[in-house]
Amino acid sequence: MAEAKPLVGIVLGSDSDLPAVQEAAAVLEELEIPFELTIASAHRTPERVREYAASAEERGLVVIIAAAGGAAHLPGVVAAQTLLPVIGLPVPTASLGGLDSLLSMVQMPPGVPVATVGIGAARNAGLLAAQVVAESRPEVKERLRRLRTQMAERVEEKARALERKGWSAYLAELKHQQGGGR
Amino acid sequence: MAEAKPLVGIVLGSDSDLPAVQEAAAVLEELEIPFELTIASAHRTPERVREYAASAEERGLVVIIAAAGGAAHLPGVVAAQTLLPVIGLPVPTASLGGLDSLLSMVQMPPGVPVATVGIGAARNAGLLAAQVVAESRPEVKERLRRLRTQMAERVEEKARALERKGWSAYLAELKHQQGGGR
Amino acid sequence: MAEAKPLVGIVLGSDSDLPAVQEAAAVLEELEIPFELTIASAHRTPERVREYAASAEERGLVVIIAAAGGAAHLPGVVAAQTLLPVIGLPVPTASLGGLDSLLSMVQMPPGVPVATVGIGAARNAGLLAAQVVAESRPEVKERLRRLRTQMAERVEEKARALERKGWSAYLAELKHQQGGGR
Amino acid sequence: MAEAKPLVGIVLGSDSDLPAVQEAAAVLEELEIPFELTIASAHRTPERVREYAASAEERGLVVIIAAAGGAAHLPGVVAAQTLLPVIGLPVPTASLGGLDSLLSMVQMPPGVPVATVGIGAARNAGLLAAQVVAESRPEVKERLRRLRTQMAERVEEKARALERKGWSAYLAELKHQQGGGR
Amino acid sequence: MAEAKPLVGIVLGSDSDLPAVQEAAAVLEELEIPFELTIASAHRTPERVREYAASAEERGLVVIIAAAGGAAHLPGVVAAQTLLPVIGLPVPTASLGGLDSLLSMVQMPPGVPVATVGIGAARNAGLLAAQVVAESRPEVKERLRRLRTQMAERVEEKARALERKGWSAYLAELKHQQGGGR
Amino acid sequence: MAEAKPLVGIVLGSDSDLPAVQEAAAVLEELEIPFELTIASAHRTPERVREYAASAEERGLVVIIAAAGGAAHLPGVVAAQTLLPVIGLPVPTASLGGLDSLLSMVQMPPGVPVATVGIGAARNAGLLAAQVVAESRPEVKERLRRLRTQMAERVEEKARALERKGWSAYLAELKHQQGGGR
Amino acid sequence: MAEAKPLVGIVLGSDSDLPAVQEAAAVLEELEIPFELTIASAHRTPERVREYAASAEERGLVVIIAAAGGAAHLPGVVAAQTLLPVIGLPVPTASLGGLDSLLSMVQMPPGVPVATVGIGAARNAGLLAAQVVAESRPEVKERLRRLRTQMAERVEEKARALERKGWSAYLAELKHQQGGGR
Amino acid sequence: MAEAKPLVGIVLGSDSDLPAVQEAAAVLEELEIPFELTIASAHRTPERVREYAASAEERGLVVIIAAAGGAAHLPGVVAAQTLLPVIGLPVPTASLGGLDSLLSMVQMPPGVPVATVGIGAARNAGLLAAQVVAESRPEVKERLRRLRTQMAERVEEKARALERKGWSAYLAELKHQQGGGR
Repeated sequence: MAEAKPLVGIVLGSDSDLPAVQEAAAVLEELEIPFELTIASAHRTPERVREYAASAEERGLVVIIAAAGGAAHLPGVVAAQTLLPVIGLPVPTASLGGLDSLLSMVQMPPGVPVATVGIGAARNAGLLAAQVVAESRPEVKERLRRLRTQMAERVEEKARALERKGWSAYLAELKHQQGGGR
Repeated sequence: MAEAKPLVGIVLGSDSDLPAVQEAAAVLEELEIPFELTIASAHRTPERVREYAASAEERGLVVIIAAAGGAAHLPGVVAAQTLLPVIGLPVPTASLGGLDSLLSMVQMPPGVPVATVGIGAARNAGLLAAQVVAESRPEVKERLRRLRTQMAERVEEKARALERKGWSAYLAELKHQQGGGR
Repeated sequence: MAEAKPLVGIVLGSDSDLPAVQEAAAVLEELEIPFELTIASAHRTPERVREYAASAEERGLVVIIAAAGGAAHLPGVVAAQTLLPVIGLPVPTASLGGLDSLLSMVQMPPGVPVATVGIGAARNAGLLAAQVVAESRPEVKERLRRLRTQMAERVEEKARALERKGWSAYLAELKHQQGGGR
Repeated sequence: MAEAKPLVGIVLGSDSDLPAVQEAAAVLEELEIPFELTIASAHRTPERVREYAASAEERGLVVIIAAAGGAAHLPGVVAAQTLLPVIGLPVPTASLGGLDSLLSMVQMPPGVPVATVGIGAARNAGLLAAQVVAESRPEVKERLRRLRTQMAERVEEKARALERKGWSAYLAELKHQQGGGR
Repeated sequence: MAEAKPLVGIVLGSDSDLPAVQEAAAVLEELEIPFELTIASAHRTPERVREYAASAEERGLVVIIAAAGGAAHLPGVVAAQTLLPVIGLPVPTASLGGLDSLLSMVQMPPGVPVATVGIGAARNAGLLAAQVVAESRPEVKERLRRLRTQMAERVEEKARALERKGWSAYLAELKHQQGGGR
Repeated sequence: MAEAKPLVGIVLGSDSDLPAVQEAAAVLEELEIPFELTIASAHRTPERVREYAASAEERGLVVIIAAAGGAAHLPGVVAAQTLLPVIGLPVPTASLGGLDSLLSMVQMPPGVPVATVGIGAARNAGLLAAQVVAESRPEVKERLRRLRTQMAERVEEKARALERKGWSAYLAELKHQQGGGR
Repeated sequence: MAEAKPLVGIVLGSDSDLPAVQEAAAVLEELEIPFELTIASAHRTPERVREYAASAEERGLVVIIAAAGGAAHLPGVVAAQTLLPVIGLPVPTASLGGLDSLLSMVQMPPGVPVATVGIGAARNAGLLAAQVVAESRPEVKERLRRLRTQMAERVEEKARALERKGWSAYLAELKHQQGGGR
Repeated sequence: MAEAKPLVGIVLGSDSDLPAVQEAAAVLEELEIPFELTIASAHRTPERVREYAASAEERGLVVIIAAAGGAAHLPGVVAAQTLLPVIGLPVPTASLGGLDSLLSMVQMPPGVPVATVGIGAARNAGLLAAQVVAESRPEVKERLRRLRTQMAERVEEKARALERKGWSAYLAELKHQQGGGR
């Protein structure tokens, strides 16, 4: 993947957000969409963010995912400097559960939208980026379609297993698999 | 515009949401992007929604805007039946100001994202759709660029006027223009 | 119970919701009300949900419990396809504690109600289903009545124990029983 | 309707809640389901509430709708004294928009459920009551089915009108009908 | 204390609330105010609550503390059946942190107040009860005064220790005392 | 009333809170409980508040009602300087509906309780004060009892009127009385 | 004032925020502190904001007030480009009352603080700026002191008037002055 | 540092808030700004708070940081007694995550501002204090500038490391460093 020119840019406000973002990267790899991932803080490195956003289009990016928490300005600040669609990924916060991150992203003023996904919904951020990329890349669309089908099949398999085993046996197995953990 | 094949689909859960959606349509007209606008309720006409979403891609749509309020399921239900990117527009509600609409859209489970914009942010829904459309249509990108420039110029003009007139004179004019209304 | 034709349908958006739903199944077993339990995701398997809901009435179901979390569309989507009463069970979420699940269910538009119970209140979902079933089944009503009486008796027993032992001794025992756990 | 024995009881905490409840009564009339409507305050007339709830079943009621606002205890207090399903209708409040009413109803402790509908969702409270009544009354089910069909048809008519007239003409008419009012 | 006639009644909706209430009992013991503590559920034993509240005044109680969580009706239901001041103690909840408990208590309709203290603020519930009791019992007032003085002195001692040791040494000790626990 | 020595003190943070407090004064007059009403701001006149609170007990007050909005510190600041029970009355706010006022009052730290009533619940603040006053004043208790009875009777009268007239006629009258106002 | 070099910069995201900001300007004029007021949008004119913030210090500003609503990034973006203290003024929003504006400002990540005042609290934003300016300008401190004294005196005058006239007469006058308006 | 006269005062409502405040002290030490740190409770030791605040200016303080949780009155009470800028640091709470602390501070009435930072944002409280101090102390400004530069450099180093190692290797290291904790 390293060879291919990235189509999706993932940018984090801080490396501490990486665990909350990894699923976005993982699903892009799964879909064989080349991407880049870097750190740029809207508040600590405003210049870096500006350059990143301003050059994104000419570097060949098609869509940007920006993740941040709290007063989560990164997606909005990136969106202000590019015409590419920007996907905002609100990172959960200790105090307010990420409601602050969500509102700081989604409530953008008229003129500069941020396409916001759910709190901590990294996989959905990646999938949404893929859906945008797929518009003019039929092979990506095809892979997305396969993923959807697999997803549906997995639900149906589980449903069959649950109906076959009965709910309490299934639940016991489920708890066993999770090692009693939470 | 009626002649051109629509690239953007706007779908409302109820015709009472039309005032909250009109800016999306207006900005698409401004950007000369052909679109269609219709009503389909996830709860009152589930079949209609299913057909709308399932046929969207082959009808040539590139992106869908779905607006709804309260337990706002329309964008998610549409997104479940298509691989096109779906933009969710949360309509304000009388009781909770639209926080219910927002959470009902944005907090989608892994696998089916909804690109959510701000509560009542119809213009941004339209602009986000345009940014997706622009990916493979340079003329749309160009028009978006012009819009951004105008937007910046308007801010700068206002800033100059405000600095020239002084804040209290400017404020008096502003209030006069708004007819003292609220 | 497997032999009897199910009167209550329990449907989950994902098998990960099973722990949050088990009390509903348990109380129905306790009340000897035949039920079925399966998985069907409004977003990952919309077709499956549609078939499940549309056939529920003719399959003999009297009431449906639908559990989901986040943008919890399942109960509403089921309710849109059947005239049976649908009970919505909001599953707690990591970020917002289940407020998102609750609002996504309860705030349904006029025409398609969802009978929503508390966040994570699986036992109450089961009891509410039983109350609906009981309308034309006096033996179920009788069992519900017994359950209520037992519930009241247990409170009164505890009250007597507490008054007899004194609050600090009772509290010490309580903590001991819970193994100091939380 | 006065002659028929009521199947649904509607009870309000205060006559000031009547405007917020009227749609429940209206839809029951529309469905030809006999009902009674009275006032009983959980806090100002606890005895009256107790008698109302305790005698509901033997008086032939099948389901009860209880509406209240703020610390909205009425549905829970009624539910504690009957085995009939109790539908809670949260009335909007000036300060918190009805979030207080909603949480005070829906978050019932294990053992005594309240089937809660949306804030101010009186029509849905009536429809949910009708769905419960319909379980053993096919003629009610039939009328509910007709209502659903009409509801769907009305959406489709509006959709056709909107597509035919174009969104801005339709919007102009809509605003005209509402007299510019809010 | 067992011999003296109780002046304060503490009533819990469930014995699981006892840990959240113990500080109320503890501070009353500290202040040598005789009290009784029992369990009575507004929903599971409404009759018991009614009798408890209706007889409270003639049994010699001066004030009642009622603790409950979720749709926390107990204080309001008690208050509806007595003219004694009723103190509401909102118990924290897993899903909403106790905001539901708080709103269910504090937002009482005109005519029947509940004197609500903070979420989980058992000690304050006890102190408030003591302040009411103290109105016509100077010896209680005196003990309250002593408690206040001690409280102030303890703050001042800690302040002196902190200033003497320096903040980082003090913090190290603090963490050591807590065993690194949380 | 002016002659009698006040038993209840009502204190407002600002004269703009007077409309939100008037019902407290009105119900005290109705119950013939002498009271005083003044303005003292915790932030603009801290000294005045301190003197007011510190002298309250020796001036013969039995209970204090403190009303404030936003960062509503007044009740807590008063409570810190007296051992009398302090009733907090949260005044609604334009931006957050009074949730800020409520939390700023009710969430007091251990040691200094504030007996908080509902947002804007001035009448309940007055009644709660009366209940405290009534502890050692049987004539006040008697008047409170009469008020309760009247309150119950009024509910029952309205219930009878509603049942007699039918809900739509009653509603029409209700709306007529309110002059179609809001 | 125009001649003096401005010490305080007030910057608005949009001229529609001017009414919500005017009190900040008014109190600075009252305190004879020279200030400048302009418009610069973090999203529509990012370059303008950057220049404004980056040059603020050398232009002689001592403190900056930045007002914005919704996803209110302006204060944070300004703070990222200057070492001057930045005061954030959250502008109320139609949907969420300004809670979104508040959280978007106050929850800044470690390293770049924003000194946030209350929702719509323009006067306090101006006063806080003055307090910062006063640190090395005794004449400003003096004027602030006078303002405080006047503020206290006005409260005391009103208290005296209220006590003299009685609450209902005072209230009647208050309502008369406000023209019965709301 | 002990020798130098303190410029910043840090005051805590309780020593249990010390862990939540330590970063403020740490960053002031890092910036070589002399400060004092003590405990004074607005509710338990109002007199101590009054004296602290009233003498702050003449003792040479330039700015005060006040930390508190729940009904967090300390910053407001301090601000009412001094003309120095007061920085409010909302301490997280178990039940409401600190939203109560935040609103209790930030929503101050006109006339007495509190410069509020994020929930638990102790480092930012310290930095904001330093920015105020720096106004007339160029050496502090210089150190602040260096801190900003380092902060930016650290982000850039991490970005380079992340790009060099790849996201999954970097993530593995990150998790390893944190010892799998959290």
